[in-house]
Amino acid sequence: MRNEALPDLPRRILMGPGPSDVHPRVLAALARPTIGHLDPAFVALMDDIKALLRYAFRTENDLTIAISAPGSAGMEACFVNLIEPGDSVIVCINGVFGGRMKENVERCGAKAIVVEDPWGEPVDPVKVQAALKANPGVKAVAFVHAETSTGVASDAGAICRLAQAAGVLSIVDTVTGLAGIPVEVDAWGADAVYSGTQKCLSCPPGLSPVTFGPRAVEALKNRKTKVQSWFLDLSLVTAYWGDKGGGSRTYHHTAPVNALYGLHEALVMLREEGVEASVKRHAAMHAALVAGFEAMGLSMKVDAAVRLPQLNVVEIPASVDEAAIRRQLLSLYNLEIGAGLGAWAGKVWRIGLMGQSASPTHVLTCLAAIESALQGAGAAINLGKAQPAARAALGS
Amino acid sequence: MRNEALPDLPRRILMGPGPSDVHPRVLAALARPTIGHLDPAFVALMDDIKALLRYAFRTENDLTIAISAPGSAGMEACFVNLIEPGDSVIVCINGVFGGRMKENVERCGAKAIVVEDPWGEPVDPVKVQAALKANPGVKAVAFVHAETSTGVASDAGAICRLAQAAGVLSIVDTVTGLAGIPVEVDAWGADAVYSGTQKCLSCPPGLSPVTFGPRAVEALKNRKTKVQSWFLDLSLVTAYWGDKGGGSRTYHHTAPVNALYGLHEALVMLREEGVEASVKRHAAMHAALVAGFEAMGLSMKVDAAVRLPQLNVVEIPASVDEAAIRRQLLSLYNLEIGAGLGAWAGKVWRIGLMGQSASPTHVLTCLAAIESALQGAGAAINLGKAQPAARAALGS
Repeated sequence: MRNEALPDLPRRILMGPGPSDVHPRVLAALARPTIGHLDPAFVALMDDIKALLRYAFRTENDLTIAISAPGSAGMEACFVNLIEPGDSVIVCINGVFGGRMKENVERCGAKAIVVEDPWGEPVDPVKVQAALKANPGVKAVAFVHAETSTGVASDAGAICRLAQAAGVLSIVDTVTGLAGIPVEVDAWGADAVYSGTQKCLSCPPGLSPVTFGPRAVEALKNRKTKVQSWFLDLSLVTAYWGDKGGGSRTYHHTAPVNALYGLHEALVMLREEGVEASVKRHAAMHAALVAGFEAMGLSMKVDAAVRLPQLNVVEIPASVDEAAIRRQLLSLYNLEIGAGLGAWAGKVWRIGLMGQSASPTHVLTCLAAIESALQGAGAAINLGKAQPAARAALGS
Repeated sequence: MRNEALPDLPRRILMGPGPSDVHPRVLAALARPTIGHLDPAFVALMDDIKALLRYAFRTENDLTIAISAPGSAGMEACFVNLIEPGDSVIVCINGVFGGRMKENVERCGAKAIVVEDPWGEPVDPVKVQAALKANPGVKAVAFVHAETSTGVASDAGAICRLAQAAGVLSIVDTVTGLAGIPVEVDAWGADAVYSGTQKCLSCPPGLSPVTFGPRAVEALKNRKTKVQSWFLDLSLVTAYWGDKGGGSRTYHHTAPVNALYGLHEALVMLREEGVEASVKRHAAMHAALVAGFEAMGLSMKVDAAVRLPQLNVVEIPASVDEAAIRRQLLSLYNLEIGAGLGAWAGKVWRIGLMGQSASPTHVLTCLAAIESALQGAGAAINLGKAQPAARAALGS
């Protein structure tokens, strides 16, 4: 045990699957003096956060709040509030996080009907439609909009519309999606959507924005059983967060006050930039990074039409010790990139361009560092091509 | 919606039931640049936090970590990991948080056998012993060591020893206790203990330190059913936090990196002061506050022998509009104190002397502000007596 104040903390460039780099404004907000979780000034801040989250999610949903725990608790909040023992849920799996949804459904005492698509491909709406037809009476369709394990975007609007047409709830994971690709909760007709703070919002991890539409609220009201989690029971949590009109607040749990200062600041920054501009920036940085990798001779793992701009999956040249390369990137460049997961472990890197990490500097630095590390490892790459290609794409 | 960076945030003196005042060192730690949750430097910091938490809890328990959510999630983590459907649990209720334990037990599909004591009194070990005899086969005894709703300390050692003698697990809530009164996890033979960060550790809210002893770990391993919460499943969470010897880490959820920076710093500060010295300081500040209130003519609600020094429950003089007084304390003195809960609403104030808020300045400022507000409200109090009494008690 080292009895020292925060020893040896490095300053990293965060280009993994999240957390992303946090802006100094957000870091400064975290350090503002703590006030009480029922202080009128804090309640006003919570109202601001709800309004700002509605802006980010593109929704008018009253029940739009931040769960006081990371994204996986946001996922769990959606399932435990909407799913009861004996229910059936269509769960679309095309990566790690779809599999986690299945775990959640089963731990609610419900049955998961799995619609599977291969890693690297989006959820197939045709299969979802077939599953809906074959399974009348299912309670919900759950899917991942932006799969962080594979870098694939699925067509959330199409799947939500199928669910709505079948009179079934939709549960959407957009932890990595929000502010990086278009998220249109109301236009999609999505019923329950959750996200995280440490991806394209560029906050530290620890909170999970969640929004429930009218049908989801109705389902929550009509439950026959109590929500199995007291901490995540939204009928209690929302008594603390209040409704759209403000109103009185009932103590439930003690909110993570300083973390919410940070989220507030990050959301204000998103509004200053504009959510459309943020999405455009992610797309532009992605194009430049891909141009650089392809010029270097590396291949992107995912088809261009369904790639997430904020999570770039690049194939590792054969015979390279990829873990050694990542260690070198960390030690020499202070650069964190992500390893492959599951069947893709050792075969791909996952390179995040999320929030503050979606910048020209990040793109160019990452390309330079990886080129140098691969050169040192003796990999067959085109030297000196990546930077000009990326700079051309950036128009700089 | 105000599109401004953290508008109008006041600087408060926090003397409610938590959060308490956060030291600038801890606030500064929160603002350190975010690094990855699997970064070797962060893994080393997690190892430090585990060791520092063992120091605070007075335990050698391997499974000693911080749950990535507030104290109520720490409570839930203990119940969902140890209690299975069909189990019976003796739940001691002498305030709000015992009642919340009962909710947790029932939401696990288990039966709560309630041992009740009146508000303002500690849990009666004689009743616990009787309940253990009358209910062979119960899985656990659950109780609150430091009841934040009533300001009462119960004899945790006595109750844990009864549980152990009966071959039953003990589940102990010491959210408000840790670092404010003696917490001796190993000496008590306690099996599962949880706390919070925003009380006597003087961190912002958002994390819940938890420790599981060998019998609790064994019960977790021998479960017949999966833990109903994926997010709080300690068999998965601990694969990320690692064991005492360090070792490899498996991604579970993304840890709240910056919040853990803050907890680390607060724990380092506790170690610098020493946990015994911290306990002594809380007792001394409590004595001074009580001396002041009694000199003013106010009465403490709880018997001196079982009072929590860190949570002082004082009776409000008759015919005083207590909410108006609290509003005045907030607006004129920036001072937050707590209202009464449940049956005690409107009858008492709950005044915290926790962590950084257990200081002579806090004691004297609080007494001065309350004296002035009560004088303004026309309450029958002894003017000019509180400060000298408190200063005499402080030896200043």
